[in-house]
This record gives sequence, C-alpha cells and structure tokens, in this order.
Amino acid sequence: MSKVRMDNLMEKVVSLCKRRGFIFPGSEIYGGLANSWDYGPLGTELKRNVKHLWWKMFVQSRDDMVGLDAALLMNPKVWEASGHLKEFSDPLVECKQCHTRFRVNEAWSDEVWWNLAKGLENAKAADKEQVVQEALKECPNCGAKGKFAVPQNFNLMFKTFIGSAEDSTSEAYFRPETAQGIFVNFKNVLDTSRKKLPFGIGQIGKAFRNEITPGNFIFRTREFEQMEVEYFIYEKDWEKTFTMWLDAMKDWIKAIGIDMKKIHEYEHPERDLSHYSKRTVDFEYDFPFGQKELYGLAYRTDFDLKNHEKASGENLKYRDPETNEEFWPHVIEPSLGVDRTILAVLLDAYDDSDEKRVVLRLAPKLAPYKAAVFPLLANKPELGKLAKEIYDDLRKDFSIAWDDRGNIGKRYLSQDEIGTPFCLTVDFDSLEKKDVTVRDRDTGKQERIEISKLKEFLAEKLA
Amino acid sequence: MSKVRMDNLMEKVVSLCKRRGFIFPGSEIYGGLANSWDYGPLGTELKRNVKHLWWKMFVQSRDDMVGLDAALLMNPKVWEASGHLKEFSDPLVECKQCHTRFRVNEAWSDEVWWNLAKGLENAKAADKEQVVQEALKECPNCGAKGKFAVPQNFNLMFKTFIGSAEDSTSEAYFRPETAQGIFVNFKNVLDTSRKKLPFGIGQIGKAFRNEITPGNFIFRTREFEQMEVEYFIYEKDWEKTFTMWLDAMKDWIKAIGIDMKKIHEYEHPERDLSHYSKRTVDFEYDFPFGQKELYGLAYRTDFDLKNHEKASGENLKYRDPETNEEFWPHVIEPSLGVDRTILAVLLDAYDDSDEKRVVLRLAPKLAPYKAAVFPLLANKPELGKLAKEIYDDLRKDFSIAWDDRGNIGKRYLSQDEIGTPFCLTVDFDSLEKKDVTVRDRDTGKQERIEISKLKEFLAEKLA
Repeated sequence: MSKVRMDNLMEKVVSLCKRRGFIFPGSEIYGGLANSWDYGPLGTELKRNVKHLWWKMFVQSRDDMVGLDAALLMNPKVWEASGHLKEFSDPLVECKQCHTRFRVNEAWSDEVWWNLAKGLENAKAADKEQVVQEALKECPNCGAKGKFAVPQNFNLMFKTFIGSAEDSTSEAYFRPETAQGIFVNFKNVLDTSRKKLPFGIGQIGKAFRNEITPGNFIFRTREFEQMEVEYFIYEKDWEKTFTMWLDAMKDWIKAIGIDMKKIHEYEHPERDLSHYSKRTVDFEYDFPFGQKELYGLAYRTDFDLKNHEKASGENLKYRDPETNEEFWPHVIEPSLGVDRTILAVLLDAYDDSDEKRVVLRLAPKLAPYKAAVFPLLANKPELGKLAKEIYDDLRKDFSIAWDDRGNIGKRYLSQDEIGTPFCLTVDFDSLEKKDVTVRDRDTGKQERIEISKLKEFLAEKLA
Repeated sequence: MSKVRMDNLMEKVVSLCKRRGFIFPGSEIYGGLANSWDYGPLGTELKRNVKHLWWKMFVQSRDDMVGLDAALLMNPKVWEASGHLKEFSDPLVECKQCHTRFRVNEAWSDEVWWNLAKGLENAKAADKEQVVQEALKECPNCGAKGKFAVPQNFNLMFKTFIGSAEDSTSEAYFRPETAQGIFVNFKNVLDTSRKKLPFGIGQIGKAFRNEITPGNFIFRTREFEQMEVEYFIYEKDWEKTFTMWLDAMKDWIKAIGIDMKKIHEYEHPERDLSHYSKRTVDFEYDFPFGQKELYGLAYRTDFDLKNHEKASGENLKYRDPETNEEFWPHVIEPSLGVDRTILAVLLDAYDDSDEKRVVLRLAPKLAPYKAAVFPLLANKPELGKLAKEIYDDLRKDFSIAWDDRGNIGKRYLSQDEIGTPFCLTVDFDSLEKKDVTVRDRDTGKQERIEISKLKEFLAEKLA
C-alpha cells in the first residue's frame, strides 16, 4: 500500500467521496462554509453503519453499559465547572512578519506547546512577549526571529444566545465535547438504572470547536460527532480497567477493518497529560498527512464528578452497597470520533493497486450497500422481473443497490468503487434453476447461490 | 382512555420518564436550561428505535429514496435565500399592563396572527401601534384594552460566530430546519445517485429555534430533531403524490402504534398557507393540552430550488431524460419531529386503567427492551446460570433487560412500566425441559416456549 499512500491517496479519496456521493463540501453552492462537510447518500449509510456497530459493541451487547443522549446546548455553569470556559483555548500564534498563523502543537510539537502554555500561565504580562520568542525561536515559514505575537486566550466554544437579547444573561455554548453531558447526568442515570460499579454510560452525538485551522478533509472539522464512554470504577481498579478498554478499542479497530499495522499506540508522557489525567493513550493512524490521533483513551480520575459536585452543590457520589461508603467513582474514557473513523476507514479501504479497477475494501458491516442486484440484460423483461423480485425481497432486511445500465463489467466496477461486497446477477439460467451468480468484491470470484438462500448467505457474511 | 386523559396524564408521563430514565431535565444539577431535555438510558433506546424505523420505512426500503446528513452549521447565504433571515420571526406580543407574553397564534388563532402579521407588514411605522390594538382587542389575561406592545422582528435562529472575532463577517446560524440542507445538496445528490423523478431525499437531524415560550415537556423545545423528506416530482403529479405521502404518513402512525382515533387531519385553508405552499395538511394529535400539530405534509411547489438557483447562481434544474427539458422539480415535504413523536407515543402508550399496574403499551418495535430475562429465584445458582446464558445469547440480537431482584410480581410491574413486551422466567422446570415461561405484557398471559425457539419467537413478534 505504500505506493498508493505516496500517490495522492487523500486527493483520490476526497474525489471518490464527491463523485460517488459519500461526502460533499458543506453549503457548496454558496461557496462552502469553513471546512464543513455534508454526508451524501452513501456517506450517510456508512456513517449510520459505523454508529450502529459502535452502539452494538460498546453499549447494547454489554451488561455493564447504558446509553444517553444529552442536549447539545447545556447550562453555561457546566462549562465553568469543567474548565472549558476558562482554559479551553487554541494554541495559535501568528508571525507578525509574514502573518502566517500556526497551531503550536502541530507546527512545532506538543512538547513545545506545553512548555509555552505553562510559561505563559506563570509569566507576568510584561514577560509574556519574551516567553513566546524564547519558546518558538524562529518562524517556520519566513524564518523571522522574535516576531511572534503573544497568543490570545481565544475560547474554542461556539457561543450563542438564548432568547431575544444578545446580552450576557442569555449566553449559552454548544458543547465542545459529549463527555460533560454524561457527568451532569451521572446521578440521574445511576438512580434510574440502578447499575453497580463498574458500569459505563455511552453516548453518540455532535460537538463543536471553533478552531482556526481545521483541515485535512473530515479529519478536523468545527462540527464533528463523537462516540464516547465514561466508565465509572473503584479507584483501585483503574489500571486493569484501562487495559480492558485498550483491548476493547483494539477489537473495535479490527471490527471496522482497519489494518492494525497502521495503528500506533502513543503513551502520553506524564508532563503532557491533562491536569486531571493520570494516563492517556492515543491510537494513532498512518494518515497520508502523517501519523495522527485517531482515538484516545484517558484515565480522568474523579476530577469531573468532584468538580460538578462542588460547582452544583448536588451530591454526585456513589454509595457502595456493601460498605455504605460514599465516594466519587473514578473514570476511564474511551473517546472515538465518528468523522475521523470514517476518514480512516475510507483511506484504509481504498485500493487502486489493480490498474483495471478501484476497490473500496470496506468491512461488509460498514458497506453502504450489502449487495447489488443486476438483471444480466436490461432489455429482457423476464430477467428484470425476477431480479426486481429478489431486489425487493432482500431490501426488506438489507441495504441493496440496483443497476441495469451498461454491461455487467461496468456495473461491477461501479459497485467495487463504493465497496459493495457482493453483486448478484440474474441470467437465463436463473429462470430455470432459481439461482443467481454471486460475485465477490475482493476476490472477483463467482459462485451460484440459490435465490432462497441469499438472505442466509448475506446474514452470515455480515455476522 | 378519556378518564386517564383528564387525570393528569402529562404529569404522570413526565414523572415516569424521570423516574425510569426515559427523559431527564437538561443540565438539571445546574437548575436546568430553558426547557432542554436529555434522553436517559431508556429514552435513548426508544429514540434510536423511532429513528431506525423511520429510516427503514421512509428511506431504506424505498427504491425512490436516498438519505442525507448535512451539517448543522450552514453558510448564512442559505438562510438569506430561504427567507429565514428576513421572515423567520416569532408571533409574540406582550401586554404592557400585566406583562404577560403571548404567542398570538396560540392565545388567539392562526387567523388572528395571520391578519396581524399582514397588517404589520403593510403598515407604516406610526400606524403599527393601532394595527396591533385593533387586531388583538383585549388581553386574555388581565383584560386590559389597547395595551399591547408592537411585536418586534425577533429572529428565531440561533446565531453564533465562526473564528475568533465576534463581528458580522463571521456570523453563522444553526439551522432552524433540516429541509434547506436537502435543497442545497439537491444537485450533488442528483448527479451522484442518478435518480430519476420522482425521487426523494430523507434526513434525520437536529434543528434549533430560539423560541420564547417553549413548553409542554418535549412538545416544543429550542433544540429538537426532525425526520424530513423532500420528494421531487413533475409539477403535474403533485396531487397524486400528495395523496401517496398522506397514506405513507398514516402507515407510519399505525406502525408506531398510535391510536388513529386520536389523529385528526387538518387541511390548512388557503389564506393560512405559507406563501410558497399550495396545500398543507397537518396531522394533529389529541395531546392532554389540546389538539396540536404532530406532523405536517406540505406541497412547496418549486419555491426552494428556484430561490437557491437565483441566490447561488448554480443550475439546480433537473433535465428530463426523455424530452431534455430543464426545469425545477416541485416538492412534497412530509415533516416529522422525533421528540414530538416520542411524546405522542409515550402518552398514547400510558395506561393505568388497571389499578394494580401501569403499562406502557409501546409498539414492540419501539420498546427500549424487547424482553426481560429473570431467574425465578435469585438464590439458586443453577437458575441464575441458565438465565444468564439465555440473556447473553439473546442480547447478541436484541436489547434485553435482566432482573433478579424481589419477587416475580414486582419484576413484572417494573417491566410493564417501561413497556417491555415479554418477560422470560427461568424456573426449575426450565432445567429439565429446556423451556421458559413467556409472559405477555399486554394480556398478562403466560406460555412455555423452548429456549432454542426464543430468538425466532421474538423476531416474529417484532416483524
């Protein structure tokens, strides 16, 4: 795959997404809007499949999990307590000579940004200028020395106003992460589900970050969707639970068909950890634009529940049913981005190593269509009739494509490119023998399968 | 049911939702936020089931439909073209004597609001005061005459700012409806899906309206979720297509188990129609707080595509494959609210007519749990072991509850209240005969079913 990787893989995938209806630029007819993207018919199905599989693996099939779906707009006091109103800012600096703006953690490194942030936090106002110049040294673009502006505390949350007056009494923020919706509902969920430790709450939903330099297609967007678990435990169990979730996340990565050789576990060094975390591991993926964070797993201690109890005055402790002891559970957080998952899945599945075709080798569970049904010839009504019957019947249980245009070879190419695992062709033998030709996307091999056994065949391949 | 209806049905349902984990007040530990609501573990499953069923019925199983998932933040030019920036305002007036604020269409009638809005639009500034007093006459609360404030043009969209500066160049709005996301993507979807008229685009997603007087639990909230179709047709077909969608919407209402006797079709009189609509029918439901709109079906003519072509300069016409004629397709729009659906479903399902129990008679497809598994006695490990095996096996395919607390009678009551259609009890006979007692929520009847046939049994009941 390394040849493909170097050969404009991103451009090819972005182009395929637009051409075949996976992902379109947002508000495109009006010139777009700040790196926003809309999921087209195939992308919508792919996204639904990703979210459905996550829910099944992380919530529905687990005895120790329940789901939640909190509002995107939350009381601003939530963001005061979580620290987002004060500290959630962008590591952005501008070179005053060439006017290029850089994200410090990307243009330099996480370490440089961490040192700079700490330095600025501790410095007096008059010294900040010097702290910046010493930390960053010279502009990566124009080479100017000592020309950086002091980064401003630019809040990353999307502010809005509830009610008619744009005054501060009605200020509200769209959530910058789904996690706080879970912590704020911890007591309600605990009381109604009567779960005992350890247990987790899973949530899928949108979040918003007003970042300056989003980019790389859907890798980093201002509006994005998260799949998050907050898993509540006894403090003593944090290490083994961390390991359990590391394994669960690997199982997920395998289930969505991503090549584990392109996944790298990055253990955050202690000094880079968020102030509330004792251990954080990122799963990084070999994106064409570099090895970047795909998922994160963090041990958040009891930071969140403790803070929300202090800020709200509500008791957010757990009472141990054996000892009657009350305490704040500790938290392990596996955090997965929906859009980033889709980008990694598409990049990993894209294969043009065969010059004759482009194949999207999607895991069948994620493929927008599970199968396509073709009548061999479009101008033979008896083939069309039988093919349509099969199509209508399968469509009750699966997402199925139909194509009767052009020749079979072209239809195969068309389905290969969107990742349809199986093509079912109705030919003249089908009329007699009540079977169809089933052609496999990955191998190109064909076999005859009885029409009455097609559902069973597909169900098995999708299990 | 009429007795129940008068007997605080709303309070009972709101209380059940909180107590059992369907729906919690949003940001509750911080005193809430302006009538926002969070879906708890059971509500999240119910909501997922509603959306999944809609997608299956309106998109996946139909050959003439494709899906879409557009961003919530769109280019402000979209809202200029759609008219939302100019005209999307709230029919709100305040009595200057008692300071009560009224939504004119609700406190008086749609007709009064329509006359007032037209009057204000045509009046000079100096005459507006008089127009208001003549239209509304006296305050429904304190009886004061001529004391109304002139309604302001208060825009209902949630404004925010992209980037760091809160100036007008970076203003953006969270979408007030999902429909425009579809129109703006019409050409991209047409080009990539190669659908021919008639065809539709379906979308599920959040929308936001900054209304002053939301209320009635999840009936009217500022943040809400829509399930919408824009169905594109030849103009000549609008009447028959309208009828087809009226029928499809009735099929949906039946599928979610709502009593058709509580549904009323309201045909908008011509003068009340939006300026772009030629026919609109609301499906109204007998809510405890009155007969109110549940769903809407509107014929929007070619208003939207025409406007977006004019505003964007992009060709949004359809080229007829037979005649090569280019034109803007006309549009039929079935619009359904997710949250309102859930409210109607819960109200309709709630039944406390039997004094001994409360039953939530949810359509099995929508029930958060499809079945609950109980060991007859908690202190008999052999029963627990078999019950757990059944539970773990069923949970691979269905959402299943587990309960081993208290006696069987109490467990039945607990499952009845959350709408679980079947309770499966493992007793001593089960060990020998490899079967369980299956108890039906609605009838209370019990039958023995072989363990090996449980999946088949549930699948059939959920079909």
